Amino acid sequence: MDSFCSLAVSVDCVIFGSDQDQLKVLLMPCHEPGHQGQWILPGDTVQVQEELDAAAHRVSQTIAGTDFPHLSQLQAFGSVQRHPAARVISVAYYTLVHLRENNFPLPGELRWFLLKDLPALAFDHGTIVTAARDRLQQKLQEQPPDLRLLPRRFSFRELQDLYEAVLDHKLDRRNFRKKVLAMNLLVDLHEAESNVSHRPAKIYGRQPD
Amino acid sequence: MDSFCSLAVSVDCVIFGSDQDQLKVLLMPCHEPGHQGQWILPGDTVQVQEELDAAAHRVSQTIAGTDFPHLSQLQAFGSVQRHPAARVISVAYYTLVHLRENNFPLPGELRWFLLKDLPALAFDHGTIVTAARDRLQQKLQEQPPDLRLLPRRFSFRELQDLYEAVLDHKLDRRNFRKKVLAMNLLVDLHEAESNVSHRPAKIYGRQPD
Repeated sequence: MDSFCSLAVSVDCVIFGSDQDQLKVLLMPCHEPGHQGQWILPGDTVQVQEELDAAAHRVSQTIAGTDFPHLSQLQAFGSVQRHPAARVISVAYYTLVHLRENNFPLPGELRWFLLKDLPALAFDHGTIVTAARDRLQQKLQEQPPDLRLLPRRFSFRELQDLYEAVLDHKLDRRNFRKKVLAMNLLVDLHEAESNVSHRPAKIYGRQPD
Repeated sequence: MDSFCSLAVSVDCVIFGSDQDQLKVLLMPCHEPGHQGQWILPGDTVQVQEELDAAAHRVSQTIAGTDFPHLSQLQAFGSVQRHPAARVISVAYYTLVHLRENNFPLPGELRWFLLKDLPALAFDHGTIVTAARDRLQQKLQEQPPDLRLLPRRFSFRELQDLYEAVLDHKLDRRNFRKKVLAMNLLVDLHEAESNVSHRPAKIYGRQPD
């Protein structure tokens, strides 16, 4: 059994935060010898009696400070040389949270970084972040998109901000509005923005999960 | 390190075969005690010095008898109780091959089964097959679909057969033709079917990968 069970399995969580038209990623410093100054995704090894999804939520809760919702499995990353400590196969998870809607208290070492301006990442974590961004873009472009990626309440402007942050390009306002209306995603909450200096926009909710 | 490396990792390959308007899956008998009479996907444990993708191709070559092309990672399956021998996390791979285009010699115990009429599957292999079918359907419905899933040469009728086999429902011929033409998938090979009793159809190729 020793040679049979000769690998370790970890989970690594790519937690994206949308902040107006910017996309951020949650990272922590790497304390592995030889990797000082580099950053890593929140992650940990999977315990023998622990489900994969449960491990991702444990990492989210105890390492990233919040049980970030809707963690979805991305894929397994298993290059032989990916981790210096041992043969560690990592199952990556990802989610998107809305930083304007929520206040996530972060443990001391954790930090949000702009996806466009990431620090040096250890191991293959840069590859994992890129794969997670690609999946996120794909999910948001699907018709209909994964509704868990959308905020609960939003104006059209806020929804367009979110799409532009994830897709990393500007969208034509009229075409975007037309596309979203055609997708039948929205529920009119019969509310308007408050405390804004411009004309208050209508607030929409997403169709229930 | 012993407690750190306390899990096993396997790869399991879901090899779909399209045969006219039918979809088949390649299975082998399960020899695990207590699972006699059940069937499993071709699979094996990942070696310490072996890449995940390489393990999938080794399984394809040495267990399923052919290095089936374009094996893509599906996802990791890691339920604590999924395998009786140990805590084994399986990284599943899938591919689609065209049984009319190719002659795949099968080792003695391997067999193609109709997806609609599968025998009893051991462990969570039924769950894995269902997830792979869902991914296959999704990939074929994307615009444009994953071209590696398409045959190299085909008539419109054959292409529609393939879509109908994977999607498991009939498609309107005119709408299908219109949709495929709009996707810009096809290269006219300026050839026609031979040895057919009906009027020979034009043969198309897919755009290069």
